[in-house]
Amino acid sequence: FVCFFLNIVNSCPATKPSMLNVHLVPHTHDDVGWLKTVDQYYYGGRNYIQHAGVQYILDSVVSELQKDPARRFIYVETAFFHRWWSEQSAKTRNIVTQLVQEGRLEFVNGGWCMSDEASTHYSAVIDQMTLGLRFLNDTFGECGRPRVAWHIDPFGHAREHASIFAQMGYDGFFFGRLDYQDKGRRMKMKEMEMVWRASESLKPPTADLFTGVLPNGYNPPAGFCWDQSCSDDPVQDDPELEDYNVDDLVNKFISISKAQADVYKTNHIIMTMGSDFQYENAIPWYKNMDKLIHYVNARQKNGSAVNVLYSTPSCYLQELNLAKQIWPIKTDDFFPYADDAHDFWTGYFTSRPALKRYERLSNSLLQTCNQLEVLGGSQSRDGPFGKGDRRAMAVAQHHDAVSGTEKQHVANDYAKRLGIGWDHCQVLVSNSLAALSGSNVPRVFCENLNISVCPLTEGSKRFSMNVYNPLARPISWSVHLPVNGSSYSVQDSNGMAVNSQVIPVSKATQNLRRGRGYAKNELVFQVQAPPLGFSTYSIILLGRAGAPDEPKRAAPVSMQNKYLKATFDPTTGLLSGLTNLETQQSIQLSQNFYWYNASNGNDESRQTSGAYIFRPNSSTPYTISSKPVVSTLQEVRQQFSPWVSQVVRLYEGSRELELEWTIGPVPVDDGLGKEVITRLDSSISSAEYFYTDSNGREVLQRRKDYRPTWDLKQTEPVAGNYYPMNSRAFIKDKGSQLTVVTDRSQGVSSLNNGSLEIMLHRRLLYDDYRGVGEPLSEPGEFGDGLVVRGRLLLTLTPPETAADAHRPLAQGMVLQPLLSFQDGTPSAIVEFSALQASLPPAVHLLTLSQWDKDSVLLRLEHQYESSESKTYSKPVTVNLQKMFSTLKVVGASEMSLGANQWKANMTRLQWNTGNDAHIYTLWLADNANTLQP
Amino acid sequence: FVCFFLNIVNSCPATKPSMLNVHLVPHTHDDVGWLKTVDQYYYGGRNYIQHAGVQYILDSVVSELQKDPARRFIYVETAFFHRWWSEQSAKTRNIVTQLVQEGRLEFVNGGWCMSDEASTHYSAVIDQMTLGLRFLNDTFGECGRPRVAWHIDPFGHAREHASIFAQMGYDGFFFGRLDYQDKGRRMKMKEMEMVWRASESLKPPTADLFTGVLPNGYNPPAGFCWDQSCSDDPVQDDPELEDYNVDDLVNKFISISKAQADVYKTNHIIMTMGSDFQYENAIPWYKNMDKLIHYVNARQKNGSAVNVLYSTPSCYLQELNLAKQIWPIKTDDFFPYADDAHDFWTGYFTSRPALKRYERLSNSLLQTCNQLEVLGGSQSRDGPFGKGDRRAMAVAQHHDAVSGTEKQHVANDYAKRLGIGWDHCQVLVSNSLAALSGSNVPRVFCENLNISVCPLTEGSKRFSMNVYNPLARPISWSVHLPVNGSSYSVQDSNGMAVNSQVIPVSKATQNLRRGRGYAKNELVFQVQAPPLGFSTYSIILLGRAGAPDEPKRAAPVSMQNKYLKATFDPTTGLLSGLTNLETQQSIQLSQNFYWYNASNGNDESRQTSGAYIFRPNSSTPYTISSKPVVSTLQEVRQQFSPWVSQVVRLYEGSRELELEWTIGPVPVDDGLGKEVITRLDSSISSAEYFYTDSNGREVLQRRKDYRPTWDLKQTEPVAGNYYPMNSRAFIKDKGSQLTVVTDRSQGVSSLNNGSLEIMLHRRLLYDDYRGVGEPLSEPGEFGDGLVVRGRLLLTLTPPETAADAHRPLAQGMVLQPLLSFQDGTPSAIVEFSALQASLPPAVHLLTLSQWDKDSVLLRLEHQYESSESKTYSKPVTVNLQKMFSTLKVVGASEMSLGANQWKANMTRLQWNTGNDAHIYTLWLADNANTLQP
Repeated sequence: FVCFFLNIVNSCPATKPSMLNVHLVPHTHDDVGWLKTVDQYYYGGRNYIQHAGVQYILDSVVSELQKDPARRFIYVETAFFHRWWSEQSAKTRNIVTQLVQEGRLEFVNGGWCMSDEASTHYSAVIDQMTLGLRFLNDTFGECGRPRVAWHIDPFGHAREHASIFAQMGYDGFFFGRLDYQDKGRRMKMKEMEMVWRASESLKPPTADLFTGVLPNGYNPPAGFCWDQSCSDDPVQDDPELEDYNVDDLVNKFISISKAQADVYKTNHIIMTMGSDFQYENAIPWYKNMDKLIHYVNARQKNGSAVNVLYSTPSCYLQELNLAKQIWPIKTDDFFPYADDAHDFWTGYFTSRPALKRYERLSNSLLQTCNQLEVLGGSQSRDGPFGKGDRRAMAVAQHHDAVSGTEKQHVANDYAKRLGIGWDHCQVLVSNSLAALSGSNVPRVFCENLNISVCPLTEGSKRFSMNVYNPLARPISWSVHLPVNGSSYSVQDSNGMAVNSQVIPVSKATQNLRRGRGYAKNELVFQVQAPPLGFSTYSIILLGRAGAPDEPKRAAPVSMQNKYLKATFDPTTGLLSGLTNLETQQSIQLSQNFYWYNASNGNDESRQTSGAYIFRPNSSTPYTISSKPVVSTLQEVRQQFSPWVSQVVRLYEGSRELELEWTIGPVPVDDGLGKEVITRLDSSISSAEYFYTDSNGREVLQRRKDYRPTWDLKQTEPVAGNYYPMNSRAFIKDKGSQLTVVTDRSQGVSSLNNGSLEIMLHRRLLYDDYRGVGEPLSEPGEFGDGLVVRGRLLLTLTPPETAADAHRPLAQGMVLQPLLSFQDGTPSAIVEFSALQASLPPAVHLLTLSQWDKDSVLLRLEHQYESSESKTYSKPVTVNLQKMFSTLKVVGASEMSLGANQWKANMTRLQWNTGNDAHIYTLWLADNANTLQP
Repeated sequence: FVCFFLNIVNSCPATKPSMLNVHLVPHTHDDVGWLKTVDQYYYGGRNYIQHAGVQYILDSVVSELQKDPARRFIYVETAFFHRWWSEQSAKTRNIVTQLVQEGRLEFVNGGWCMSDEASTHYSAVIDQMTLGLRFLNDTFGECGRPRVAWHIDPFGHAREHASIFAQMGYDGFFFGRLDYQDKGRRMKMKEMEMVWRASESLKPPTADLFTGVLPNGYNPPAGFCWDQSCSDDPVQDDPELEDYNVDDLVNKFISISKAQADVYKTNHIIMTMGSDFQYENAIPWYKNMDKLIHYVNARQKNGSAVNVLYSTPSCYLQELNLAKQIWPIKTDDFFPYADDAHDFWTGYFTSRPALKRYERLSNSLLQTCNQLEVLGGSQSRDGPFGKGDRRAMAVAQHHDAVSGTEKQHVANDYAKRLGIGWDHCQVLVSNSLAALSGSNVPRVFCENLNISVCPLTEGSKRFSMNVYNPLARPISWSVHLPVNGSSYSVQDSNGMAVNSQVIPVSKATQNLRRGRGYAKNELVFQVQAPPLGFSTYSIILLGRAGAPDEPKRAAPVSMQNKYLKATFDPTTGLLSGLTNLETQQSIQLSQNFYWYNASNGNDESRQTSGAYIFRPNSSTPYTISSKPVVSTLQEVRQQFSPWVSQVVRLYEGSRELELEWTIGPVPVDDGLGKEVITRLDSSISSAEYFYTDSNGREVLQRRKDYRPTWDLKQTEPVAGNYYPMNSRAFIKDKGSQLTVVTDRSQGVSSLNNGSLEIMLHRRLLYDDYRGVGEPLSEPGEFGDGLVVRGRLLLTLTPPETAADAHRPLAQGMVLQPLLSFQDGTPSAIVEFSALQASLPPAVHLLTLSQWDKDSVLLRLEHQYESSESKTYSKPVTVNLQKMFSTLKVVGASEMSLGANQWKANMTRLQWNTGNDAHIYTLWLADNANTLQP
């Protein structure tokens, strides 16, 4: 076969230079889970919830495409496409392959799903994109490679996503949702299409991405929806017919086209002809578009200068590229998204906090498994781990998955899929560690350590603990093991005694675990693990007699180690100050918990708070307690109410203060929906500025009641100032920066000078009219409301060295050590590192994963921005040949970020943005290497 | 092409003799108008009313049929199919032709629509069937000929329909709706399938029709609906899928199949896989049925004896025929239809009485036009009359058209289509009469004579009137012309003076026409016209001065002519007696108007009265007036209330008493829905018996609270005793028969000895939950409620000669003379008959219609049943060669009733019904003749 698509000019429809060319893009938007589960959507099960069956969409479209070579279709979600493909006959596969080769069926985006942009981490996003792109590459070769990124539905757009797409080789990006004020301005200024300069670090055009705002979200223009789910009248072209409407429809279409052309720059415009789960019956769509094209173009004989054609985003993009316009530049992002004055989509930054954490933890586990599959060799692969587990994580990136905007039963399904992935992954870890440690003693994983539950540690007199570290640098980590003894001996891999304490399990934890475990105490000690390897600790019960010290019912004045000192107000028991003992800098810092009363609509607007939308009734949140019950014992335990508590910890050797919060069940029997925040109020002169990361990577400056690209009319003083934080947020002044690193994606804002507030949990009583049709009121395991526990890490540093602390801290939070346990004595090999040495501090090992039998995919990343660290924001070199201790690299080839193209072959369309001459630091490029295990 | 279908065995799927064979019959039920108009249904316009677009059904099914030769589909409504066909390319037509030839696409029923059985007249039913069958025959030849009649939706079944189907050559008939008690008994007795002996006159098996009751109406078994409009789960056969359901579905299907087989006689059962407007997307249906067949049959390996297959009604019927069973005989009909104890579908017998009359009048006009197209020669064809007008009438036969069960806007559409037909037909009549009369003077048609409106007669001083008689015997007819003069000279074709009177237009008529005309008087005279020809009357204004006598405000004691005498109660003014002066028989006879209060549901059942359902709140109707205001003047005028009036007329030379009733606007501002009846209470000892016709042809005996074939449990004493009357109903005792001939289809009952009640009008406030979603409350032209005027003709005779009177009377009511007017003096040729002589009294000329350029279709009918008339129930011979005066018959070939087969080629399946040895009179068979104009 000749791949016509390679020569895109050949497969694109002819256009007319002297006319307005209207590119009709037939498409379907298939959520990989939302109101129904991904399985239900694929098969069309439970259609009483929502009529949607993706299998039929692909059946029907393929059937209709064959009927006319002019017809086009694009497909987006590889999660669905690969499944459909697996059920097709050789004959159908041949037909589809030819349609792809001829550019009649075009893949756009092409990831496993269309990921959420506010609550995802770049690590998982790159993985899910890679999974989808690889399937397309394996199946269709170069013809299957998407040229265009397509995020028509996500509720706001992250700059890091744009950067990723650029580095994956996409030529352009289209989306549907942006702030209504922004859209108004862009239409007026003809800035609906632009070049998004998506990184302050990468040299243009490396992270430049041509970006277009679609005219009607992702829907067809009003009156031209011919899906079975629509009720617009078809083209009724029998002149004998009473309802003959050709003249009316053509007039209306031409008028809409001209109005649209008025807000775009060129004589080409795009129309998205489709919507959610449309084309289950492709016949009405194509039949009526065929007629529309025929009748509109027939007017050309009478002087009409409107030319309609079937097209695709690539073909439209190509025409824009040929138009040789100068395009405006965009450098910030598209958060927050508001579709009306009181309708800010900032609630979902926090919605379903437990799912958000489970997704993040699952990613950590998946990366560990991917690494151990490589490191453990063939023995590690003897189990169920594999595609299914990567797919579960990939599906969880969907913009109605980790976003928390799905129905409860669907959220349960995502969690279940991840849970199955955990089971499979644990088999692999066992196999791999058996190979690497030489011990086949059964290995136990304790998933509930966060609520002090682990039957083995609770009951065993002698056990060993393997600490696997997925980072490419050594780590130190504080471990809390549930135990029932009162004293233990802990030895490290070298047989050296490790200092440990036994402290009683807190009341808050006992209440929270509700009979799921019976440990009285926690054994606390610090562990170390080598880069990309493990160390083993041996724990022996010394005595059961004697209870540990009970916590003292009194607020401490302070807690400190050699790096940090936290002070507390002795009257209220609240945090009152933080001092960096190394730099001798000190700030006042109070912290407390509050809740906003969720709006259930008012006279100004009927908008409620819901899964998507955050809208507080009042800008002043309610204080839960101004004087918590406080007790102290190594750690400070604060009880704010029966449903809010916190433990403040400062570990020896740590430069960060840990706040472990526990919230829930949030009471709603008072009829008030609650959106619970914690707020840090400090003496830092941050004025109106604060900073948040983008998908856990680069950091963007935020300013209260302000948007960089338009003159904001602020209508929601709280919700309109919320932004997503994926890994970190901070405030700073000249001397000090207070950085908060978190364990999951959340909403964050700074509404006052020196203040930073983070939304932790939401329990609401109303749906917010964006389709999910359920109030966000998670029942939890016991049905009375979900309890969530999480951690925030606080650092206080000078601004110029802040990144040196928060970069490794955040990576450690994302890829955390995996603990596994064996009863009895430790294995023969107690320590292992796959690296010859730690990678340089600036280098993060993002991906190490088996690609096929003879090769692995390696991604190395420079984890500092170009100017955030004096020490680390510099080019750095890694010698791949000398990197691994147990793997021999016999060859390596650099690929695009999505691993579906050789880097050398990557050519992208060039766009003129006028003059710009900044200097950028080149990051270490991503690498794919062929390695021999 | 070889027509495989001719050899039906070859095209039918293989079955397994030792197994239960489940015939899946994929089908769609496409109403030619109901909630949307026929155009809207075809194109899929106004989908917000109901999602339905027939064009896509045929597109999609044809596409899916090609994918697997095992797949089958049946199509029913030629009104839709012919339209779709006209829009197809040659390529698609070839594909469809092959599918038809191979029996993969099978036409069943095949008429223009699926006609209503309760409110249609056999003349129009035969026409609409012929229209559809002819299209199929012209397009596909013998392969397109339907073998099976298929009335899955009509609300009860008429015996005459079965007789028509048998005479059209159908091998079998399937339907879905029958009384729930009847169905219960038939299931228990395995009598769901039977031979319907549909005539008491025709010798078996001429009118025998194998008839099957479908198991689930016309729907698939519960849980197996895979249309886009359904929400049943698909076959989810990916074992990795959480919702995998193959085992459950197969078990359920086998269990349903076995339960169904228990109530049928053979090892073959049928399942209707489809429903209203289904298969718009055929993919989900076929994909899931493919899987169902695969997985159910796969069980045969494990000993299952259930075999599922794609099939068609013909193939299923063939298997039943081969089964050599003895089938029970059915001789009555399936009226009334009840689907539950209080849910009798007897309201629609009367619903929309004006539409029912307009449809009947339109048929009369269409027959006249058909005749005049033949008689007038080529000149008559120079106009728009033709297919469109026949189609309008054909569409009006649909079971949601003339039945009155459509939405108001759809009823308006049917009327509009008929109205266009009238316009076209009038052009043809003008052309044809111009040719036959030699006069091109413009001809005027007065459609509103029934409300005394006709501008020409009102204003002209001298005009002529052409009376065209479509019957094959001479007629005498009473004419009322609106005029403003006070005396006129009237001359017949021979220049002889005709006796005439001028009487004032009644107040009731003046109120009714509301400014649509200003005639003060009516000129009344009797006209004659020759068989299948016309006569011309000349009318000259003599004087305007002097008003005619005003009616006297007093009840007459009696009115009489030489044949009949009607007496009135001088106190009440109501009719009190009727005497046949020839036979000297006399009965007491009172007549009055009443209304039942329509139920809006009660504790017993929530069932309301609505378009379909009749359910009175009480079995005792309300009297409107027991003493109407009466005035007399040639005719007796009775005013019962502002909205009910009547004129009683007895014309000179007439043997029938005419009751012209006017009802409306029915007041409903009291919150009570009203179902208005007139009731005749006589001294006839009818006990519980009364008689109604079937589609205007044969007569069936009815008995109160009784059904011939099962032990009725009567739950609705009024509604459960209502039956349709299309042309006539009567009661009788040994000496007397009181026959009522009506002008449209209505509901009728006899609830007391000697009583006959006819429902005339209905205005209701609630929908009755059968889908139409509107209360039946017709607004009429002025928005305040429809006013309806109609006629009942009463005869009193000995029972043995009653038919001699009511047969011609009813035919004259169905095919009534067409009056047309010309200003000035009459044309040259004032009288014409196309016949050499009247046909014998027993012979009715049912059809005379141009077939193609060189041939016409002629249908002659023996209009008496085998034993109803001593004089006329005898074989009769017609000499076709000597029949016409102006047409020369050069050849004639006899065809089936549907005119899609030579009579000589007609072979039908034979069915064993056990012993029967009755003797039947053979009617004159239908004839098709090739005539030279």
